[in-house]
Amino acid sequence: MPREFFAVRTVGEALAGFRPSARTPLEPVALTAAHGRVAGEPVVAPEDLPGFARSTVDGYAVRAADTYGASEGLPGYLDVIGEVAMGAPPAVAVPPGGAVAIPTGGALPAGADAVVMVEHTQHAIAGTVEVLRPVAPGEGIVRADEDARRGAELVPANRPLRAQDLGLLAAAGVVEVRVHARPRVAILSTGDEVVDPATPALSIGQVRDACTVALAALVREAGGEPVPLGIVADDRAALGTALTDALTVADVIVVSAGSSVGGRDETAAAVAALGPPGVWCHGLALKPGKPTLLAECDGVPVIGLPGNPRSALVAFRLVGMPVVRRAGGWDVAPAEPVARARLARDLASAAGRLDVVQVRVDHGVATPLFGASALLSVLTGADGFLVVDEPATGLAAGTEVSVTLYG
Amino acid sequence: MPREFFAVRTVGEALAGFRPSARTPLEPVALTAAHGRVAGEPVVAPEDLPGFARSTVDGYAVRAADTYGASEGLPGYLDVIGEVAMGAPPAVAVPPGGAVAIPTGGALPAGADAVVMVEHTQHAIAGTVEVLRPVAPGEGIVRADEDARRGAELVPANRPLRAQDLGLLAAAGVVEVRVHARPRVAILSTGDEVVDPATPALSIGQVRDACTVALAALVREAGGEPVPLGIVADDRAALGTALTDALTVADVIVVSAGSSVGGRDETAAAVAALGPPGVWCHGLALKPGKPTLLAECDGVPVIGLPGNPRSALVAFRLVGMPVVRRAGGWDVAPAEPVARARLARDLASAAGRLDVVQVRVDHGVATPLFGASALLSVLTGADGFLVVDEPATGLAAGTEVSVTLYG
Repeated sequence: MPREFFAVRTVGEALAGFRPSARTPLEPVALTAAHGRVAGEPVVAPEDLPGFARSTVDGYAVRAADTYGASEGLPGYLDVIGEVAMGAPPAVAVPPGGAVAIPTGGALPAGADAVVMVEHTQHAIAGTVEVLRPVAPGEGIVRADEDARRGAELVPANRPLRAQDLGLLAAAGVVEVRVHARPRVAILSTGDEVVDPATPALSIGQVRDACTVALAALVREAGGEPVPLGIVADDRAALGTALTDALTVADVIVVSAGSSVGGRDETAAAVAALGPPGVWCHGLALKPGKPTLLAECDGVPVIGLPGNPRSALVAFRLVGMPVVRRAGGWDVAPAEPVARARLARDLASAAGRLDVVQVRVDHGVATPLFGASALLSVLTGADGFLVVDEPATGLAAGTEVSVTLYG
Repeated sequence: MPREFFAVRTVGEALAGFRPSARTPLEPVALTAAHGRVAGEPVVAPEDLPGFARSTVDGYAVRAADTYGASEGLPGYLDVIGEVAMGAPPAVAVPPGGAVAIPTGGALPAGADAVVMVEHTQHAIAGTVEVLRPVAPGEGIVRADEDARRGAELVPANRPLRAQDLGLLAAAGVVEVRVHARPRVAILSTGDEVVDPATPALSIGQVRDACTVALAALVREAGGEPVPLGIVADDRAALGTALTDALTVADVIVVSAGSSVGGRDETAAAVAALGPPGVWCHGLALKPGKPTLLAECDGVPVIGLPGNPRSALVAFRLVGMPVVRRAGGWDVAPAEPVARARLARDLASAAGRLDVVQVRVDHGVATPLFGASALLSVLTGADGFLVVDEPATGLAAGTEVSVTLYG
């Protein structure tokens, strides 16, 4: 066995057990910038909504009792004594035997308790409307507090705000929301072989840093703000300095821990020395992604990822993104798009280990893609991935599987 | 029937038939800003990737033929003549009978065609390694072009770039991508009753503009850049001027078309006068959302939405977001998270009309939420929605349904 793994855990143990408690502080943001942000406290209605009874149809505001018994054969006759203008308070009240013309969305005049749709009326005599169907009290209107009662919760805390949440807040006049600050996620790439992506020509042995830009994208998907801190050599002192600097600017630290065992050893030692309580697990029962390290140092979660880009992205999606979301106050896992498909071929797996297998999905058939953990093309060529859980020793061809689709 | 609908179409007809052809122009963006952007042309590999054969394990680079027949009982003995350093070209070649120590990710020395894992070796005599298992040529390595061959497609055009796409582009040294400009989507709110969300106290009859901020969020989800143009009165001349101005700045125009029939008539007339070819449909067989208008004026798609916020958001999600995505070069519909659930109660529907019903989902049971189209709380309280297709006249309690979850 590789010598460096001293505290291997399952992915399930990591998700359930590695839960650093720090959350980012709250900050006010304008409603127009609050989409996807996470409210830090429930927002309640400062007043009844819509604040006045409104018509839901074009028609006539009436006293419902005046329409009882009306029919096509025996219409009710009501005096039209005025009309409601959009956006203005009604100028007249509805007396017994009276009706006031009203557009959809108009404010219900005093005296009225229902609105008859224009389609259920008829005009014969000037100043009079014939009502062809009875209405019940409340018909054709929304109550003054039907969208929200003063003090009622408009949106909950601890999940991202959606389009309709912003709409309801706007309707209530709430134009600023207190949300969790986006967690700043420091990203460190390590490895003597790693060079900046802008390097035009590589020497034999060098590779460009693929992880930082990809991890930054996943950090953003998890609601965080990536803080790329560059490339660090596989040198314990240099790593220690870089990590200590990261602690001062970041809510979460992610470090791709080198692809060689030696490089990973250096990173693990540097993280272990960073601060208490220190390393929570070193090694996940995960393929690809075994060389994953989870630590908490001085209240900051530190996620050490494998150096192979594919392994790093798989592990970060599984155990890193939940850490970032939680730091940002997000308490529920987001729903992800899933396709049901039948497996095209047998898949082997080891019991006790969770396997993440990239697949193409075509006409309901999931075809696994294989290749070394170093190959990013396995990820870019995939539509999504399936998971072979720890107890399983494999899946037979034809098994119906759930494929989580890459967004 | 309401008098204003003169060209009602089904949602299916709208999605299949209303396809304005204009796409936004391409612009270069830095790779670090390309997440979710839509490449305008496939990006191909400028060189082989990784560019040199690499080890995928910690071990010894060897000539595979030198290991044939090796076993635990009868190891093969190879001379260790050097080691490969991370990030550097190999200093030595592997001669017959020789081996070179190599870390994961190291460049394969000349002469070698495989790498034996360190776990399958043993050290007994200084300068010599015992090989306990044979390796085949190609074992323990990735080829110089295994991640991508020069000229091969790294990422396709016309779908949003994902985290792993950015990683592969970085590995290939592609640090700028030509992507479709974000479609600028002008948003106009109309209605004499509509006032700015920041209005602290409303008069009876007034409502705050809930649509603009919510539509802006959906525009962003569809890859567009919202351009809020404010609130316009239900006045044909004012609307005409606002729409003409919008044409000069926008790739797509969205206008919430007033909630009263009169307000919608004004909007429809103003859109009809805006430019050729003009109105494509006026009215969708959709509930809520019937008063939806689709037009193309001087090459710009114009989407007229119902004035009721809930109807507007339902219709925009169904037929507006695809228009925005297409304008931005996005050719495939994104996968959305879906939950399977059993319907808690009977749902009525009219044949020939598509119904969108908001639901709560709890323990596999979907409970419909009801309320007037004016009520946003039906949307904010929902976990997602289900669709009752045109042919159906309803769904019975207990039916298994697909609920599209709000993100």
